[in-house]
Formats: sequence, C-alpha cells, structure tokens
Amino acid sequence: MARTEISTLGEFGLIKHLTKDIEVKNESTVKGVGDDCAILDYGKKLTLVTTDLLLEGIHFDLTYTPLKHLGYKAVMVNLSDIYAMYGTPKQITVSLGVSKRFCIEDLEQLYDGMKMACKAHGVDLVGGDTSASMTGLTISITAIGEAEKGQVVKRDGAKPNDLICVSGDLGAAYMGLQILEREKTVFKGQKEEDVNPDFSGKEYILQRQLKPEARVDIISHLKEKGIVPTAMMDVSDGLSSELIHICTQSGVGCRVFEDRIPIDYQTAATAEEFNMNLTTAAMNGGEDYELLFTVPLELHDLIEGVEDVHVIGHVCDKSLGMNLVTRDGQEFGLKAQGWNAFQ
Amino acid sequence: MARTEISTLGEFGLIKHLTKDIEVKNESTVKGVGDDCAILDYGKKLTLVTTDLLLEGIHFDLTYTPLKHLGYKAVMVNLSDIYAMYGTPKQITVSLGVSKRFCIEDLEQLYDGMKMACKAHGVDLVGGDTSASMTGLTISITAIGEAEKGQVVKRDGAKPNDLICVSGDLGAAYMGLQILEREKTVFKGQKEEDVNPDFSGKEYILQRQLKPEARVDIISHLKEKGIVPTAMMDVSDGLSSELIHICTQSGVGCRVFEDRIPIDYQTAATAEEFNMNLTTAAMNGGEDYELLFTVPLELHDLIEGVEDVHVIGHVCDKSLGMNLVTRDGQEFGLKAQGWNAFQ
Repeated sequence: MARTEISTLGEFGLIKHLTKDIEVKNESTVKGVGDDCAILDYGKKLTLVTTDLLLEGIHFDLTYTPLKHLGYKAVMVNLSDIYAMYGTPKQITVSLGVSKRFCIEDLEQLYDGMKMACKAHGVDLVGGDTSASMTGLTISITAIGEAEKGQVVKRDGAKPNDLICVSGDLGAAYMGLQILEREKTVFKGQKEEDVNPDFSGKEYILQRQLKPEARVDIISHLKEKGIVPTAMMDVSDGLSSELIHICTQSGVGCRVFEDRIPIDYQTAATAEEFNMNLTTAAMNGGEDYELLFTVPLELHDLIEGVEDVHVIGHVCDKSLGMNLVTRDGQEFGLKAQGWNAFQ
Repeated sequence: MARTEISTLGEFGLIKHLTKDIEVKNESTVKGVGDDCAILDYGKKLTLVTTDLLLEGIHFDLTYTPLKHLGYKAVMVNLSDIYAMYGTPKQITVSLGVSKRFCIEDLEQLYDGMKMACKAHGVDLVGGDTSASMTGLTISITAIGEAEKGQVVKRDGAKPNDLICVSGDLGAAYMGLQILEREKTVFKGQKEEDVNPDFSGKEYILQRQLKPEARVDIISHLKEKGIVPTAMMDVSDGLSSELIHICTQSGVGCRVFEDRIPIDYQTAATAEEFNMNLTTAAMNGGEDYELLFTVPLELHDLIEGVEDVHVIGHVCDKSLGMNLVTRDGQEFGLKAQGWNAFQ
C-alpha cells in the first residue's frame, strides 16, 4: 500500500484533502469546515452537545483495530450519547493528533470510517483540528444534535415502579475484546504475514467490539409509539455503572433480575471458554452502546411491543437500595466495577 | 505541595471533584455537566462551534508553562475563534487525557485556569471527558457560542478596496516563546531550585505567550459603533497565513504595509537581541490571538476611532496578488511560513 508522508501536505493541505468531498446535508448546518467556527441554526429546538476523547493505548489498540473501524466507532460512541438524550445527532467536529508513524493513507482510512458513520446517521462533519502528536493517535470528537423542547430525556427522571428496559444484548463487546486480546498474545512476536487467527463463530462479538452501532432504531420505535422514557442513558461503562448513575441522579433504588438480562449465545459460549462469570461480563463489561431507560409501569404492554427491548427490572424507593436479584432469589448490591483507567 | 493520586478518586469521582463548584450562568445553558450531553437553548440565534486540540510536547511545554496558565490559554484560544466570527462564546466542553505523572492537585491548577478564563468571558463549562493517557497531557476544548442571524463574519467576504485592520500588536507571543526556550536551554540539567531566570523587561512578551487574551473588547467596540466587518479571523498561525486565508476564500488580493504593522517595543528589542528579522517575527510568529478583519473603505474614519485597532493595508483585485510593501516601497509576495508541525 502507498505511504505518503503527511508533511508533503502540511496541516491546511491535510485538512483540505481529508474533507474535500464532504457535503453538508442538514438544514441546521449553515456552514461546515473552513472558517474559525462551524455555524449552526437550531431554530426553536434545543441543542445537545457531547464530547469524547479516544487515546491510543488506552481506548484502542491498533494491533487489532483497523483504522476504518476505529473511525466508525469513534463517531458512533458520540452519536450514542445524543440518542441517549432522545435527540437526533446532526453534526460532529473531529480533532486528530497524529504521530509520524501515520501517513496520509492511514488518515484516509480513519476518515472513511468516520464518514461512513456520519452517512448512516445523516450527520454532517463540520469542523475540527488536525495536529502532529509526539506519540500515537489521539481522536477527540464532539457531537451536536437537536431535541424537541420538553422531550429531552435526562438521567434524573426515574420514578419508583417505573420499568427498567435495555435494548439489544449485553457483554458481547467485552467478550469480543477478550478474544482480540488473547489472539494478540498468541501471535506476539510473529511476523504479520504469519498471523492468521481463527475467529469463526465469534463474528458477532467481534463486531460488537470493533463496529458498534448507536441504537437510532430503538429511538425511532419509541418515538413512533409516542413513548418518552422517564430517564435514559447509553451503556458505555457497563450496566451496573449506568444503573447506579440513573438511580443516584433520580434519587431512587432498583431491582434488576439476572434471568432477564439479555445475553447473546456467542457471549455466553465465550465466557464459558474463558471461565468467566457471564453475569459479571454482562453487568460490567461496557462498550455495549445499548440504551438503558425507564418507562412508567402503565406502558408495560406498549414497551413489550417494541422490538429488541427487554424489561429487566423496576425502579423502587431509594431506601431499598440498588440490587441485582439472582436466579435463586438472592439480592446483591450493584457495584460500578467498570474499568477504572486511572488504576 | 500535596500530591493526591488520581486513582484515589477514579474517573467519575475526579470529574465530580473538578466540576463541583461550577454554576451555570447563561440563559442558553439548560443543563451542564452530569448527563450524556449538555443541553443548550439558542432560541432564534445561530450556534457557533469550534474545537482545538492541545498536546504536550507539540503545543505546550510544561517545563516553563504553569498549569494554571495553560488552562487559561487553552480556553482563550477557543473563545478567540468565536469572537472572530463576531459571536459571543457561551459554553465550553473540556476533555482531558492525563498520564500518571499528574496528580489531582495538578488538575485543580489546570481547572482553576480554565474557570478563570470562563469567568472573565461569562462562559459556562458544560461537559467533557476525563481519561487516563499513556504519555503526557492532552487537552481538547470545544467552545460554543451565539451569533445574530445576518451578523456572522466569515473569512470569505472581503471586497476590493476594503481596509485591512488588525488589533493590538503582533509577534510578541513568538518572541516570548524564544525567551522561554532560551532559558530552558540555559538551565537544562540544573536542579529546579537553582533555576532563577531573569525575565525583567520581558514581562509583556512573556504574558503574550503564556496568558493570551481573546479580544472581546475589540468586538464590543465594533458592535457599539455598528461596524460589521466584511471578513474576520483571529491571528493564531501568523498574520501572513491568516491574510492568505482571507484573500483566498474571498477571491481577492491584498497590500499590507510593513511600516503599518503594530509591534510592541519589547518585541522589537527582543528580536534585535536574538538577531531576528522583526517583520518576519510579526508576520509569521503566530499565537497573537489578535483580530484581523476587513471593513469597507467608507468606514475609515469610524474605524480610526476604535481604540487599539490599526489599519495596515487594503484589499485589492485578485490579479494583483497578496503582497507586503516594505519601507523602501518594494513588494514581496506573502508566504504562509507559519509553523508546520508535521515537519
């Protein structure tokens, strides 16, 4: 593959090169890339803003993450935050810090993934910053979106007796990561052409790790049925951690049931292979980017009719604590065992 | 000074600690730190968005940059971009990547500087992301602001015969950097307590480098007098580079006059000390964060009455090129000699 040094283009040339084919599509995008700021017009709607920083060696490992997938994922995790407010993402800005290890073709791959994610969700790339870095790759993305007044769903609105719902299944991205890390160890020190890992039967969990999808489909279904959750967030740090956030901010407790937690077959099989506790993986794995939300009890029948949404428990009074009820009826307090990157 | 490891708080604890005393002030800030997104209400106004990534070893050197100053500057450079659109900054989000070298007290210093900058400009800190990093300090800031419809000033509106204006003076931040770099070399290898550089007589240029101010005062004066520039941007990469941006995007040429370029006495004295060409320093130094803008010729008398604004030349037809006219009447084509971090 060709390798063209970034220095041949310089900063402005590089930005121009990477963004030359970008056309803005949204009415709210007045002006995209190319000035001191992007200009947006949100009319009477609310503006949502969220930002995420992804650092090489901390949030991703380029040994097994293709740059195109990384670009796609970096955008998705931000869009997921906009959906988690019951909003619609409209724009992103992208800042990159790039060491000399990377060439223009690498950045094209990364941008291709980002553009693909933008296209899939009707989002405009409206600006950013590209700079050299001393070490590795740094990606900082800010997503901006719109929401109707009175229809933003925060974390603090859960009420006792509300049903706790989660979309899709949990723990798969975490088990996908275990597979990738194991193969990395197995093939360490070997030449790239000799590395030929066998991922058959693991396609789903690998995809969950490498190419997560923000659940716009769930939001669309909820909106179609006129369901506005009382509280919502996306599952990025693990179900336990997110439940604690919602309960703490809403001033309530919760009961979730182990046998209700949705888990894919590949996740279960891989957990067994690794001799890991499946419920722990599902509760604390993280990076699922599913939606966790609460709805009033009277919407039970309506919510049961939404595809790929699972009722996993209910909200209760704060004094009852936040608990997981196991298959044999025991209760365990939830802990945010989620990954602490500072340790 | 105390040193408390970040791991004692963890990610969520750290964010809570650093943001606990933040109160949102702006009407457009509906919800700040603490959910998946910040929620903003810009009513009928336009929303401006800009983002900057600052990386240790590339954009700043902690050998001589106090963390509080760094936090202040990191915010200022973003606010400057909002002002450069004739807008008013209202919110920022802050993402940090922090290696183990840094402790909680360090981040408090950094945040103190950011909060000070926010306070000075009436800006709310509404969200962000804090993460571990493998090496050094990464700061990504996104600033959001408002502008009146029909009053946003882009780079593409300069017309032949417009006057070219610049605020303040140029080249000082660059000469301040030369001083800091020289002292760093002189004291290399010495113990910290033995380092006692003499900065007397260099206070202004050091402040320009370490604690730049976004020129809200100029924007206020222009608005008071009802002057809406035809094109504007802030001087971050150097006057030459910014003039080329405005001329290229506006499809025009320009003449700027060497003897009109505003330069402070300390800048001139230091350039002589370093045996550097003063005009080159002023044209290509960068990091001045002054405002460069164009206004119609008929506003000449009005613009002459705005304090600290200097007319340095005029816009001309594209066919006449972009030139600097020297004291002896020679013309030289402008070059974006600005720093190319990729080389």
